[in-house]
Amino acid sequence: MNESFKENFDDFEVTPWKVEGSVDYARLIKKFGTQEITNEILEKIESFTGELHPLLKHKFFFSHRDLDWILNKYDNNEKFYLYTGRGPSGMVHLGHLMPWFLTKHLQDKFDSNLLFQITDDEKFLFGNQTLDEIKKNVYENILDIIAIGFKKSKTKIIINSRHIKHLYSTSLEIAKRITFSTAKSVFGFTNSTNIGMIGFPPLQAVPCFLPSIIEGKPTPVLIPAAIDQDPYWRLTRDIAEKIGFYKPAQIHSKFLPSLQTIGKMSSSSPETAIFTTDETKIVEEKISNAFTGGQPTISLQKKLGGNPSVCSVFSYLKYLFDTPAESNERELKCRSGNLLCGECKHDLSDDSTAFISMFQKRREKAKDIVSDFMYSEES
Amino acid sequence: MNESFKENFDDFEVTPWKVEGSVDYARLIKKFGTQEITNEILEKIESFTGELHPLLKHKFFFSHRDLDWILNKYDNNEKFYLYTGRGPSGMVHLGHLMPWFLTKHLQDKFDSNLLFQITDDEKFLFGNQTLDEIKKNVYENILDIIAIGFKKSKTKIIINSRHIKHLYSTSLEIAKRITFSTAKSVFGFTNSTNIGMIGFPPLQAVPCFLPSIIEGKPTPVLIPAAIDQDPYWRLTRDIAEKIGFYKPAQIHSKFLPSLQTIGKMSSSSPETAIFTTDETKIVEEKISNAFTGGQPTISLQKKLGGNPSVCSVFSYLKYLFDTPAESNERELKCRSGNLLCGECKHDLSDDSTAFISMFQKRREKAKDIVSDFMYSEES
Repeated sequence: MNESFKENFDDFEVTPWKVEGSVDYARLIKKFGTQEITNEILEKIESFTGELHPLLKHKFFFSHRDLDWILNKYDNNEKFYLYTGRGPSGMVHLGHLMPWFLTKHLQDKFDSNLLFQITDDEKFLFGNQTLDEIKKNVYENILDIIAIGFKKSKTKIIINSRHIKHLYSTSLEIAKRITFSTAKSVFGFTNSTNIGMIGFPPLQAVPCFLPSIIEGKPTPVLIPAAIDQDPYWRLTRDIAEKIGFYKPAQIHSKFLPSLQTIGKMSSSSPETAIFTTDETKIVEEKISNAFTGGQPTISLQKKLGGNPSVCSVFSYLKYLFDTPAESNERELKCRSGNLLCGECKHDLSDDSTAFISMFQKRREKAKDIVSDFMYSEES
Repeated sequence: MNESFKENFDDFEVTPWKVEGSVDYARLIKKFGTQEITNEILEKIESFTGELHPLLKHKFFFSHRDLDWILNKYDNNEKFYLYTGRGPSGMVHLGHLMPWFLTKHLQDKFDSNLLFQITDDEKFLFGNQTLDEIKKNVYENILDIIAIGFKKSKTKIIINSRHIKHLYSTSLEIAKRITFSTAKSVFGFTNSTNIGMIGFPPLQAVPCFLPSIIEGKPTPVLIPAAIDQDPYWRLTRDIAEKIGFYKPAQIHSKFLPSLQTIGKMSSSSPETAIFTTDETKIVEEKISNAFTGGQPTISLQKKLGGNPSVCSVFSYLKYLFDTPAESNERELKCRSGNLLCGECKHDLSDDSTAFISMFQKRREKAKDIVSDFMYSEES
């Protein structure tokens, strides 16, 4: 079967608004035209940061654009900004936190300024909520962002509708350079797409260029984000140099799987995800109902062993809580039938409730310092 | 020849960005689906304003949407806002002033609040100037707007890029309700249209709804403008009631003809128009070179008479400077061969230089009160 023939039979779909099916990440790299994060790049990162962050070691971040270039820039004393974001369609779940964890790590290790964009306009234009409903999400989501522990002095949150005046002229410069046919081919716009959606993408490009405007010189930007957002910045990269800026570099994560079935966690199906605002009891319930790679009965599990590679509980433990050594041991024990699903669920339940309870305390404290994190035109 | 067959042979084109050929205004009313301004409506206006404004009497304003409705509202003690605008593509010429003259008259007679929108973003997206070049136009154009003599206490100028934050949420509500196929059919967007242009139209709709937001209740709005801008508000009218507002009413003007050939005056061909910033000598030169309806020689003119209906000089005098009685007399004398083109040019030259020189003094004075006319979110 040749490549193009196989592509038509992909049983997954990844766009900025929809992630469906069992994602073949190696295939996605080819489809999107990104680069795999090689061991050579990881070694280079390690040379700056000391021990690699688990999300890098585990290759949860697996793909990039120009990451090698930005590391070379850093090596030559050219510091980079970080830029990531949040579409405030609802409450935040653990899947959303993953890129933010790495972003915080990179901010700490590279002493980077961070722009954090909240695309409230996008979520209004692409969804079914009112502006008032989205405004509530924005506030709740900001608490999560602050709870991650970003440096107050080096982190600025941009809310599109609030900071639109500051973003507008740059977004016009970008918009003028993107034709409908280009946007259509990247985003799949149709005749029934509303014109707000068609006009929106430049706004998600602006923070790629703000650092250069703030610093008064071309300034590298690295975007840690889940790979579904790549199309936005693919477009941005196409026009960056035409308006005198560097192309933004990117580092792409996989998706934390759904707790229930194959696929990404989803805010619209609350049972598939653990939200940062879930009560302990709810977290425990969701985990006890989670989909695992185990056998139907205990005796079969002991006889045949389980399959961690399709197990959501294993993935959560691996990416969020286990050390690499613990994770390897867990995998071996599971495969050899020496670990029952109940035990893993118990571990995940303990770890998750402890994390969520700690995180909720930090969310409470965040309420007092929201304004310190807001972008201002003077900053 | 049937109607639809004839339509294909129209030798004119009117869109918000292009007016070409000799416009058949009766035909345009049919094409756009607007209403003719009837004598009944003019009598109704006269009952409120006293003697009709010359631009109404001369039917320079010839078409409308819901003008009768808004007059009935007024009759029932429901006052209306006026809304008009300027696309700051360059300096202002006499053609631009025509709708503003009527707007001022309506403001005086109906004691209306006026929102004056400057679409600097549109002119950037649709044109070839930089944002800085357009910013200079904006300032110069504001001087013209103020020089018209609008009431300071009842007039607010909105500059899209400056007031974008205040316009943005309403523009999102509008944008979400307009599909690409609708916008495409109204504006003729193609695959090579930039996505800023596609996303722009909602911003020109916002001032139709701002009065209701300001007043906290549905508030009628009347838009005096040249008829080429109708497509914007045709779209707006389609969605107004869906979001709880009145449809904006409109009163449409013809175009002041070019001084040189058939067609509209044009900022891109400076010799076809008299700009408010032209020096006296330039005004005189342009008028002396103007296209008239006269005969090739004096003796032929005396023998055959001229044709005022195709004469740019006659139109300028009629719409801008002559009283209706003077204009009728001028027409009769011209047609009977008792008036030479040189005499009309002389009259127009005298009137125009006097007007421009008075207007330029008012433009100078306007410089001190620009900020008084700026829209503020508190107003």
